[in-house]
Amino acid sequence: MSDTVKYLLDETKIPKAWYNIVADLPVPPPPVLHPGTLQPIGQGDLAPLFPMALIMQEVSAERYIDIPEPVRDVYRQWRPSPLYRARRLEKALDTPAKIYYKYEGVSPAGSHKPNTAVPQAFYNKEEGVKRLATETGAGQWGSALAFAGAVFGLEVKVYMVKVSYQQKPYRKALMEAWGATCVASPSEETNAGRQILKEHPHSTGSLGIAISEAVEVAATHDDTKYALGSVLNHVLMHQTVIGQEAIAQMDMADDYPDVVVGCTGGGSNFSGIAFPFIGAQLRGGKKVRVIACEPSACPSLTRGKYAYDFGDTGHLTPLVKMHTLGSTFVPPGFHAGGLRYHGMAPLVSLVQELGLIESRAYTQTKCFEAGVQFARAEGILPAPEANHAIRGAIDEALRCKREGKKQTILFNLCGHGHFDMQAYIDYFAGKLEDSAYDEKELAAAMADLPKVAAE
Amino acid sequence: MSDTVKYLLDETKIPKAWYNIVADLPVPPPPVLHPGTLQPIGQGDLAPLFPMALIMQEVSAERYIDIPEPVRDVYRQWRPSPLYRARRLEKALDTPAKIYYKYEGVSPAGSHKPNTAVPQAFYNKEEGVKRLATETGAGQWGSALAFAGAVFGLEVKVYMVKVSYQQKPYRKALMEAWGATCVASPSEETNAGRQILKEHPHSTGSLGIAISEAVEVAATHDDTKYALGSVLNHVLMHQTVIGQEAIAQMDMADDYPDVVVGCTGGGSNFSGIAFPFIGAQLRGGKKVRVIACEPSACPSLTRGKYAYDFGDTGHLTPLVKMHTLGSTFVPPGFHAGGLRYHGMAPLVSLVQELGLIESRAYTQTKCFEAGVQFARAEGILPAPEANHAIRGAIDEALRCKREGKKQTILFNLCGHGHFDMQAYIDYFAGKLEDSAYDEKELAAAMADLPKVAAE
Repeated sequence: MSDTVKYLLDETKIPKAWYNIVADLPVPPPPVLHPGTLQPIGQGDLAPLFPMALIMQEVSAERYIDIPEPVRDVYRQWRPSPLYRARRLEKALDTPAKIYYKYEGVSPAGSHKPNTAVPQAFYNKEEGVKRLATETGAGQWGSALAFAGAVFGLEVKVYMVKVSYQQKPYRKALMEAWGATCVASPSEETNAGRQILKEHPHSTGSLGIAISEAVEVAATHDDTKYALGSVLNHVLMHQTVIGQEAIAQMDMADDYPDVVVGCTGGGSNFSGIAFPFIGAQLRGGKKVRVIACEPSACPSLTRGKYAYDFGDTGHLTPLVKMHTLGSTFVPPGFHAGGLRYHGMAPLVSLVQELGLIESRAYTQTKCFEAGVQFARAEGILPAPEANHAIRGAIDEALRCKREGKKQTILFNLCGHGHFDMQAYIDYFAGKLEDSAYDEKELAAAMADLPKVAAE
Repeated sequence: MSDTVKYLLDETKIPKAWYNIVADLPVPPPPVLHPGTLQPIGQGDLAPLFPMALIMQEVSAERYIDIPEPVRDVYRQWRPSPLYRARRLEKALDTPAKIYYKYEGVSPAGSHKPNTAVPQAFYNKEEGVKRLATETGAGQWGSALAFAGAVFGLEVKVYMVKVSYQQKPYRKALMEAWGATCVASPSEETNAGRQILKEHPHSTGSLGIAISEAVEVAATHDDTKYALGSVLNHVLMHQTVIGQEAIAQMDMADDYPDVVVGCTGGGSNFSGIAFPFIGAQLRGGKKVRVIACEPSACPSLTRGKYAYDFGDTGHLTPLVKMHTLGSTFVPPGFHAGGLRYHGMAPLVSLVQELGLIESRAYTQTKCFEAGVQFARAEGILPAPEANHAIRGAIDEALRCKREGKKQTILFNLCGHGHFDMQAYIDYFAGKLEDSAYDEKELAAAMADLPKVAAE
């Protein structure tokens, strides 16, 4: 039997609809609140930021929402993405477990992010928008939106967290190669940015600040809308092409996972692989253990409070109920820049509250150790974010070994690490540190959550 | 009709044999000469450097050589690679031509190089070799061999041209992630390296020097063999999986190319796409124009002499008849590090002498201009080497536009540019220069070719 097994679907098998887990949850999601009134918002309140098609998806309770053909046409460039049986890794671990991974690094931007960037650009273009403003941390989302903007002929303006802007010139260059404009945040271009710079002239920025800048630009320009790369319901829903394909591919392998593992920052790649399996379970299918793996330096699911909070530092965004470390929390430095958000997607938070998923936190050195073991066995160099999922999957495989169990483990390899080589250089040089956050600062940030009557 | 068209073969369609163009050429290739005696070498002369299976492939005149199943199993991770119809690029160019590209950047190492690294590692492992020594310029070949070594459990030692070693720490980190050892060449580890450093303490290295070091290590260690990433017959043959798949994919599209374009450094990716089409033509099939695109800073096919020359600076390798700029020629700086070799593969040189291909040289700024146009239309950021093929394909498409011809153009997109972002940054900053070589130095290098009685 071959050592490498790839399960590849024909492109006619690209899902025809996105899956909306809201339809199968036993309770409705808590309402989103207006930042000014703290009352549930109406659809019109979001209209300055998003095109109506996406607003309708955000509040939809329909189980399936059709994927427009022009979006499937673009997906076709790299979808269906491959599912692999990691036989060489199984052998290296000497585990009786079967390990499968879905590989999203085959997209032009190298991660799962184009799954939502493409439909977001499409719907905006359809509704006559000329320009999209967004934020990016490590640059994965910014480059995915730059790619999607190039495909549909939209201008893209990216506010990139200043410390990443300085440390990751290659991600910026990738955005520019696709024609996007990228500036360091906080910038002098927005009120939100100028205010931060006035108070903290040497601010290195944060996702929360960059979101404030992008939202402000969208809110104050008629031809510009805002695009978010994670957290929101419609973003998570777009990612469900991952899990839907994985179910079909596991079926090709005549197998079904006992355990599904993903890494969580804002929650979108995790939802993409997990929600279709959780939905099948909720509709009477096989029970699956689902494990969210997050960085111990930014542990929203394992340490955060389930409460209403703002999505940004400037408190311009609506409030959502989520696991949050507080919108003023600034995590210590670590290399998985895509997992530095203070909150967690409301739907991921809700499924954890409902007992449908587990979560665990890992230090970065443990994750890089897993990532390098994976690379040497399977040949693909993972993104630092994805290393958290690999760590979780390897730990599960080692548990199976201890327990002598032949379980099936599936994880999402959400992207490659080609733009994260400095992190690997630091890891090989023994320079990676597992910095802990300051417990007092975390306590202060979590004590400072907005007071909301609805809770 | 969809704007993106992907032609993807089922993995059972991975070719079962490599194609050997020698079987279809009207003349046999000139013999390889011993560097000491200048007489044709025997198979035994190569035994210190290569495993016998590869030596037999090097001298074979059989049309097809079976691909071992364990090699096909590894190929399966990314092969068959996709063939795309570049509709968005066609539209951007407003050309009546149809443009197709075969994309080899889907391999774990991001280029076509694993197509030969994998069988080379396999045959060495089969014959009990413990360690492979090789050279690398920009790092594509070194990382491909590091990947293949990880798969088959072989140690890999890479001599990396010093200027690249210093400028491209990320390629080195990628090799290390796969467990290989990478040192800057010239090094203190070999006689060849020490001699260069004695004469030129600040030498920044060259491919020719790095080859001398790797060959020396293989020749002087029983457990170590040498691996070369281009130029040799067996290497070119391994790459023919590209063109064989492309023929089947063009057939799926119910089309056949009028023009086939590839970039040339040592000649392997070009041969991979072109030789199966040239072979079909030689066996009575449709005539195809085949165009080799090389950098004007290192123009072996367009300016080199067709003559016997050494493959390395230290004159340790056998002599082959090829288009050469002289083994002492050092090209000026440019960003397509994979296209800096002083010579051209003997089989590519021979097909040019036979009038079966055309060649042209391009400056790097013209190539980057084409690469960025391609990236904005098609979404994939190409390697600087591949930009030469894109330039050639776009020029052909623009010719078709001028002439009002609906021709079909196929080119090989041999790799992505994720490890070449500094080149794009320099291009966007207007810092790329089209340095010319010194005509006197070139004349001197070409006057210094070895005198061989056979010519």
